Amino acid sequence: MADKKGRREAIVKIACIQMEPIVGDKKRNIRRSVELIEEAAANGAELVVLPELCNSGYVFNDRDEAFALSEEVPGGETCDAWCAVANKHGLHIVAGINEREGDSLYNSAVVIGPEGYVGTFRKVHLWNEENLFFEPGDLGFPVFRTPLGRIGCNICYDSWFPESFRLAALQGADIVCVPTNWVPIPGQAKGERAMANTLVMAASHCNSVFIAAADRIGTERGQPFEGQSLITSHTGWPIAGPASADKEEILYAEANLADARRKRNWNEYNQPLRDRRTDLYEEMLGSPHEPGWY
Amino acid sequence: MADKKGRREAIVKIACIQMEPIVGDKKRNIRRSVELIEEAAANGAELVVLPELCNSGYVFNDRDEAFALSEEVPGGETCDAWCAVANKHGLHIVAGINEREGDSLYNSAVVIGPEGYVGTFRKVHLWNEENLFFEPGDLGFPVFRTPLGRIGCNICYDSWFPESFRLAALQGADIVCVPTNWVPIPGQAKGERAMANTLVMAASHCNSVFIAAADRIGTERGQPFEGQSLITSHTGWPIAGPASADKEEILYAEANLADARRKRNWNEYNQPLRDRRTDLYEEMLGSPHEPGWY
Repeated sequence: MADKKGRREAIVKIACIQMEPIVGDKKRNIRRSVELIEEAAANGAELVVLPELCNSGYVFNDRDEAFALSEEVPGGETCDAWCAVANKHGLHIVAGINEREGDSLYNSAVVIGPEGYVGTFRKVHLWNEENLFFEPGDLGFPVFRTPLGRIGCNICYDSWFPESFRLAALQGADIVCVPTNWVPIPGQAKGERAMANTLVMAASHCNSVFIAAADRIGTERGQPFEGQSLITSHTGWPIAGPASADKEEILYAEANLADARRKRNWNEYNQPLRDRRTDLYEEMLGSPHEPGWY
Repeated sequence: MADKKGRREAIVKIACIQMEPIVGDKKRNIRRSVELIEEAAANGAELVVLPELCNSGYVFNDRDEAFALSEEVPGGETCDAWCAVANKHGLHIVAGINEREGDSLYNSAVVIGPEGYVGTFRKVHLWNEENLFFEPGDLGFPVFRTPLGRIGCNICYDSWFPESFRLAALQGADIVCVPTNWVPIPGQAKGERAMANTLVMAASHCNSVFIAAADRIGTERGQPFEGQSLITSHTGWPIAGPASADKEEILYAEANLADARRKRNWNEYNQPLRDRRTDLYEEMLGSPHEPGWY
């Protein structure tokens, strides 16, 4: 897509695929994800984000099941299928995958481009019973340089830690892609914006980064999910969504990712990332002075 | 106030005073702030928050004016008036004040209790032309132990830095009081929640702290302000407000500040402050590896 001056610059058509994986039926989930990626491609998508653990489902009965639904990244059947469709349509994919490395599982996001595998992010902050199956992410918050722009990632509960977005922005991310399986938050009033959406908007605004969050829907073994996938611009305001709470759908937004680099000066004095007072942030790291009883 | 079991515990009646200071008319502003504190006290308030620079006004014509409207903290006429009313009613006050120390000005919040001066917070992240008049805060993000609970502070643009709330929470804050002068944010749609409110809710939720933000209203020398003062519980959901965008009013909420300590376990595995992966947060401090070109 070209802008008003006819420049394509860094304009990217983003798609967030909101879908319902079926736990345990990996072949079906792969097939369904590829169908939806094909649909997004037919609508011009260049960067496609899919939910957390969209190839395996989320609520595992036990470790045996979690392991049976995992695969090496890259090299497994899911990555192969996603690499093929990315190559066919010349697009990038960021998608949640149950990753196995040796005898360890990770709740990961794989980044794939037209030429194949780009990189992996492993969920850093594990939520609830994920702690029974997965190892906490050990790759930090990598930012991947792609022809579309710089792509950071985090997954679901990672977004509850402002550090996750901050670290991506500080490494130059233009957009943070968030494969997620948002669960209900106590106190959420009906008709009120989902707290998860509030977190995304706040992080996007403060860090001047685009965010594309693709959530799942449905109820799996008693666990409901929230839908309401969302794409924000570097200003924090939604440019697509929130999607419905309960329907499979694809959100689309065209965004000039260069705006995350160019438009960060808010006035003659302030640029939110450069205004950080790192001289006063020492406690953030958990120094010996940090109490630990909070 | 007592809870259902008859325990007073840490239940505090909080008041956020949304008012319109008049730039340059310091005596009037002090008088008006005391009137409103008296009103809050008559309604049972025990912790009263007032806006940023509520004794001086915000938009200074020049350094001479900014200096003329400043005073030492404590010891100046504004603190004296606030100490007197706090003592009279046995309440705590957190209020924005134009502080002078030697030849330096600070955009500060003073914390006052029934026994007098408790402490000072100096705005860390200066916004726009504040940079012409004020020194950036050099006291970090102190948390004050009071009989009501632990009180942290930040001021306006500080809230745009998730670090500000994080550092208060990591030092055990139960509530963060935010004297503020919120200005319009580009892209804010009419009828849509103010981005400033979104930031407060997100920070309150992620850090499991109460937040009481008292904003000003009115237009001063061409600069409009946003009102919409807000009090959130430790869950991030509003318990009072947002207030109107353009009227003087007082928000009230009763809150058991002990909930910020007791109810932080979200499930059998997760406590949002303890789940931080400080092993992966090094870049937050601005290490030599931090690029600086974002």
